[in-house]
Amino acid sequence: MTVELIGTHQLFGGEQRKYRHFSEVLHSEMTFSLFLPQAKPEIPLSLVWWLSGLTCTDDNFSQKGAFQKYATENQLAFVIPDTSPRGSAIPDVDAWDLGQGASFYLNATQEPWKQNYQMYTYITEELTQIIFRLLPHLSGKESIMGHSMGGHGALMIGLKNPQRFTSISAFAPISNPSKTPWGKKAFSSYLGTDKKSWKSWDATELLAQSSVVPPIYITQGTADEFYGEQLVEHAFLSAAKTKQQQVTYQKAIGYDHSYFTIATFIEDHLKFHSKHLLH
Amino acid sequence: MTVELIGTHQLFGGEQRKYRHFSEVLHSEMTFSLFLPQAKPEIPLSLVWWLSGLTCTDDNFSQKGAFQKYATENQLAFVIPDTSPRGSAIPDVDAWDLGQGASFYLNATQEPWKQNYQMYTYITEELTQIIFRLLPHLSGKESIMGHSMGGHGALMIGLKNPQRFTSISAFAPISNPSKTPWGKKAFSSYLGTDKKSWKSWDATELLAQSSVVPPIYITQGTADEFYGEQLVEHAFLSAAKTKQQQVTYQKAIGYDHSYFTIATFIEDHLKFHSKHLLH
Repeated sequence: MTVELIGTHQLFGGEQRKYRHFSEVLHSEMTFSLFLPQAKPEIPLSLVWWLSGLTCTDDNFSQKGAFQKYATENQLAFVIPDTSPRGSAIPDVDAWDLGQGASFYLNATQEPWKQNYQMYTYITEELTQIIFRLLPHLSGKESIMGHSMGGHGALMIGLKNPQRFTSISAFAPISNPSKTPWGKKAFSSYLGTDKKSWKSWDATELLAQSSVVPPIYITQGTADEFYGEQLVEHAFLSAAKTKQQQVTYQKAIGYDHSYFTIATFIEDHLKFHSKHLLH
Repeated sequence: MTVELIGTHQLFGGEQRKYRHFSEVLHSEMTFSLFLPQAKPEIPLSLVWWLSGLTCTDDNFSQKGAFQKYATENQLAFVIPDTSPRGSAIPDVDAWDLGQGASFYLNATQEPWKQNYQMYTYITEELTQIIFRLLPHLSGKESIMGHSMGGHGALMIGLKNPQRFTSISAFAPISNPSKTPWGKKAFSSYLGTDKKSWKSWDATELLAQSSVVPPIYITQGTADEFYGEQLVEHAFLSAAKTKQQQVTYQKAIGYDHSYFTIATFIEDHLKFHSKHLLH
């Protein structure tokens, strides 16, 4: 399998790299970004996964996330996958909340999606192998985080793999997609109308079923234009309360859905992950 | 004169705002961005001008500059003008280094540019009045900085107004545009082929003529793809040496022309400006 380095920028003494490869799982050419901090031999290098939101690519967080300084301090390598397979051969619809750029990080079971939209397996297996081959000096400890659709992706993948991910965090996650418009649209198309099949891809449902749950940190802005309708935290927090699972929930007064909110609170999130990754 | 607020995002407790207005000087509708830090009553609020490079708008630095945290700490409001007048009624050519997005921040004297390309007067007079009316609590102290074409703009405008600007800084400035390809193309088109008229718009020429020079800080990456041909620092540094004018010149090994370099070193630049603005 060829993984081609297509771009490198130096920053904070480390490197923001971009790679291209053909994914066997997705049957699609893919790009991903990788931030590799300047080495500090006294601190082990952990891996953090960042999953982006609807319409994004791996570039948005790389360029606007303002995370690299704090990732360097705490020796966190970041892998930033694209949000779906892409290209003219990949199924798509004329909508920004379904199809290309809107995979919801699940494995589709329905036509026309199931051949290519296997992002869960791509991330947790194929891309994982690529990253650990590229970075053989990783400590083996991993955390996962994301924004909006990717905030849900982080919660969902983290909750499905609680032994693997040391900690989970999310900005403005679609916490309960089975019950909110973006999620219902995507799940009915990717997974079909039988809602039983949705449960294993919905973070609130997964939390309710979980016996082991990594520490979770969520930031939600109150001026977020999608808060209330698309981003509903109550069911998730209530499931956490029922299980006596501690979720740190930061309500950010006056903050919106943009990367400016991420840039403001990313330092807090990386402190949270570092605390768990390094101890 | 109507100045319309068309967007606001909260970050670091402050606001990244975007405004639209009709410029009488440019005969063009214009946008600009303004960062207003969360107030710290014990520190006076200074104003910093950021001038962007070729092809940019006011959004690039707002979104990728990672400056807002340090601007908040030091109570620096930032005004970020667009890089030229814009729109279908504004002269342009099919090139990214001349016309719209490529004003070089000067006052054009040649057709078809001179009616609209009066960016120097726009910035130093019209937009200045707008900003001081929007922010009546400013201390009155100002610094200026920028990147590439805007790095030169900052040097040029700062050197033409040494009593006004407390300090000047630049990332990868086109230090001597009369002698390098982008500059020669733009100056001959905007100012005509009589090179005598170029001297009052070229930072190296201005430095050689200046009697009063504010403190200057320059960062240049050695892996910058335009370094050497377009970005030539020797003449500028040599003019500074002749005048015994101290220029802090930071050669950033391995850094390129991107905003990743700016994000890495912006904290150093804002410390430099704050030292001069606050003392």
